[in-house]
Amino acid sequence: MIGALVFAASGVLAVRRHGIDLIGALFLGVITAIGGGTIRDIVIGARIFWIVDFNYVWAAAAASVLAFFLSRPGPKGQRVLLYLDAMGVALFTVGAASKVLALGLAPAVAVIMGLITGIGGGLLRDVLAGRPTLLMSREIYATPILAGCSLYVALREFAPGFSLAGPIAMAVIFGTRAIVIFRNLHMPGWLRREDAT
Amino acid sequence: MIGALVFAASGVLAVRRHGIDLIGALFLGVITAIGGGTIRDIVIGARIFWIVDFNYVWAAAAASVLAFFLSRPGPKGQRVLLYLDAMGVALFTVGAASKVLALGLAPAVAVIMGLITGIGGGLLRDVLAGRPTLLMSREIYATPILAGCSLYVALREFAPGFSLAGPIAMAVIFGTRAIVIFRNLHMPGWLRREDAT
Amino acid sequence: MIGALVFAASGVLAVRRHGIDLIGALFLGVITAIGGGTIRDIVIGARIFWIVDFNYVWAAAAASVLAFFLSRPGPKGQRVLLYLDAMGVALFTVGAASKVLALGLAPAVAVIMGLITGIGGGLLRDVLAGRPTLLMSREIYATPILAGCSLYVALREFAPGFSLAGPIAMAVIFGTRAIVIFRNLHMPGWLRREDAT
Repeated sequence: MIGALVFAASGVLAVRRHGIDLIGALFLGVITAIGGGTIRDIVIGARIFWIVDFNYVWAAAAASVLAFFLSRPGPKGQRVLLYLDAMGVALFTVGAASKVLALGLAPAVAVIMGLITGIGGGLLRDVLAGRPTLLMSREIYATPILAGCSLYVALREFAPGFSLAGPIAMAVIFGTRAIVIFRNLHMPGWLRREDAT
Repeated sequence: MIGALVFAASGVLAVRRHGIDLIGALFLGVITAIGGGTIRDIVIGARIFWIVDFNYVWAAAAASVLAFFLSRPGPKGQRVLLYLDAMGVALFTVGAASKVLALGLAPAVAVIMGLITGIGGGLLRDVLAGRPTLLMSREIYATPILAGCSLYVALREFAPGFSLAGPIAMAVIFGTRAIVIFRNLHMPGWLRREDAT
Repeated sequence: MIGALVFAASGVLAVRRHGIDLIGALFLGVITAIGGGTIRDIVIGARIFWIVDFNYVWAAAAASVLAFFLSRPGPKGQRVLLYLDAMGVALFTVGAASKVLALGLAPAVAVIMGLITGIGGGLLRDVLAGRPTLLMSREIYATPILAGCSLYVALREFAPGFSLAGPIAMAVIFGTRAIVIFRNLHMPGWLRREDAT
């Protein structure tokens, strides 16, 4: 639920730059927070998590309204938000992979669902707000999630008795993201293609 | 079904400004009409309403083709369409909230599903047509829906015997939208944020 | 599965023009390949095909990585890809219509699901990549699918014993697309509307 709070707040701050009113901010903040998990639950055929426990929506809505009325965070505040977001992502994605494994689905499906849970909400927000999505940027965001969820699923698969798979995977995701944020790293040029038109 | 007709026609007229061919207009018109209800049914886990009764799609398709070939409506015709759209929204959204309550889901879920049914189709159309969505505009569209559906759900919850909850909520949504259209109201500035970049 | 390979590769090549890194290309390539079928399965309430058989995702992922690292195809290579894509579309869409009929759903639903399977993945890719979608272009892409799937469904409905419905419909879709590609045809002007603003 902490993840939902942070996702919603960062979602609202992201769209504030484009001009937004309270209702739009509320909608986009809540979508950022619960969109990824909603896509995951629809695809795996589970009941939508926020229909089961509506408190996720209340938390996201409260964080969105707060982020709307707060004064604009300075560069320091934005960095803190990035680290909080990295924590939220680590919790969300490994939790999602664990939920998928518990349903008896294939390990590779669990990795994909972790990824979708982590980036789906932000993708929906950007598409609805008319912003370029994460996928077209040079930000290193999906890679740590893919790495961490793959590690988690591998540990669960090959060392079923090992109880630290979750914490280790979360630490990997948070740690990698923290290094990326701290060092302001981007995708290297050789992993990038841009054809002349 | 009247709602589907109006939604489809207004959807086609909206994208005609951007240049569209008949098949694209047909697709976007039908999406505008049935998109919101489709998202609602997927999220609540119900059978999709237009798979149960395909006449919704035929009606939307017919209205789309008609709106494609019709000459462009003048300012007066566009106003009439806005009022028809307000009627469609009032019917659609309260009907959706009622359907969700009948499934035994929480009142707050019913309000959200009313909102999604009302604006989901238009959001899908705008995203697919590359137009800025409603959420980024200053139009007052979602607020009447939120107010009317909340009122409906509250009346159903706290006065279960009262049989006029539906008509009253519809009147509130249509009435508010009609005032907004007639007075050409927009979101006030203090409910709007636009950060300098 | 051949369809998935071609869809993924053409999806990656399409977004390479806009600048993309490996992970983004992987994600968008896989979405192009499996997006349409995923929407179809969600709407008809079937289990998602790639959760049942994950090899579709592996194939799409491999084709995406390959298409990312390959040198840019010349005009001749791009034409070959278009024809391969036409073959993939013919297989995919008629297969989808057949799957829907097998579930006992209405013939018109089968036609729509064929269409969604054929264009859904490309629509998702374009929306996520911030490109104008197919629906706004003058390309003749959806029309052959609509025609072929309608023919297939009609043959299955009115000549249940006739075993060549599938091959004939696929030939119609591939043939029409091939003529469109070979002659570089576009939607005629009278089937197009663009209102002055």
